[in-house]
Amino acid sequence: MRPIGFVRSPFTETAQIPKGLGASHAAEGVLEILPELEPGLLDIEGFSHLIVIWVFHESRSYELVGKPPTDDRPHGVFATRSPRRPNPIGLTVVELLRRDGAGLHVRGLDMLDGTPILDVKPYLSSVPADELRRGWLAEAKARLGSERRERG
Amino acid sequence: MRPIGFVRSPFTETAQIPKGLGASHAAEGVLEILPELEPGLLDIEGFSHLIVIWVFHESRSYELVGKPPTDDRPHGVFATRSPRRPNPIGLTVVELLRRDGAGLHVRGLDMLDGTPILDVKPYLSSVPADELRRGWLAEAKARLGSERRERG
Repeated sequence: MRPIGFVRSPFTETAQIPKGLGASHAAEGVLEILPELEPGLLDIEGFSHLIVIWVFHESRSYELVGKPPTDDRPHGVFATRSPRRPNPIGLTVVELLRRDGAGLHVRGLDMLDGTPILDVKPYLSSVPADELRRGWLAEAKARLGSERRERG
Repeated sequence: MRPIGFVRSPFTETAQIPKGLGASHAAEGVLEILPELEPGLLDIEGFSHLIVIWVFHESRSYELVGKPPTDDRPHGVFATRSPRRPNPIGLTVVELLRRDGAGLHVRGLDMLDGTPILDVKPYLSSVPADELRRGWLAEAKARLGSERRERG
């Protein structure tokens, strides 16, 4: 595995990246693909959304069970998007705004500036919203939301 | 990068895997996660769909521009799901049927039996269908469909 390019993002520290319930990922930036791989981008402009597979390059270890920022209860790492995974692979769906040679201008980044990119794939189809269950995340949202209302 | 588990699928040869326009991926099988990583599956049962990141372990080289099974015209590798990618990473969204210890019974496999799994993540949200553009794939579907009708 070697980088096919690097992310240019407005985030230079992880603390700047919106996290948790209701976080919006509207940050714009560029996926800078290596110049020698530019032919592999042929026809990518036609897709509205891309799947970016990348490396949590600042992650140094993993934990199998941990508390995500979205909940006050622990969950298994494969049931979360935690960076502390056995293989430090991240995945982000971004909106493709335009292509400029080997640069893909995108919206929806949640990676650090300089993040190595492993792969880019077209986003082809969605699971219909009414078929999607979101487990502990939906439960935490309901529970923490109602706790917040009780406190407020 | 090391496997976190292996796919048990009905497909022992790539020719058996449905490909191309309108291919349905209804095959069932098991994601066998390594026993020592089982704690990382805590609470995964609550999610209806999972993203599986895996290795095209039989892919030996890559080509930047190639003709996918869905079209008779060439496209860039990053605009296709071709196995012949600079990093041979595959991605499949599967429906989680049930969990049995470290085994995740799923529907929607398109990998070979024995495929190494790199990561499993919960599928959290969809891009709304009316916001999705599918570039050359939509164009090929329209064009090849009308050619078929003309021939027929």
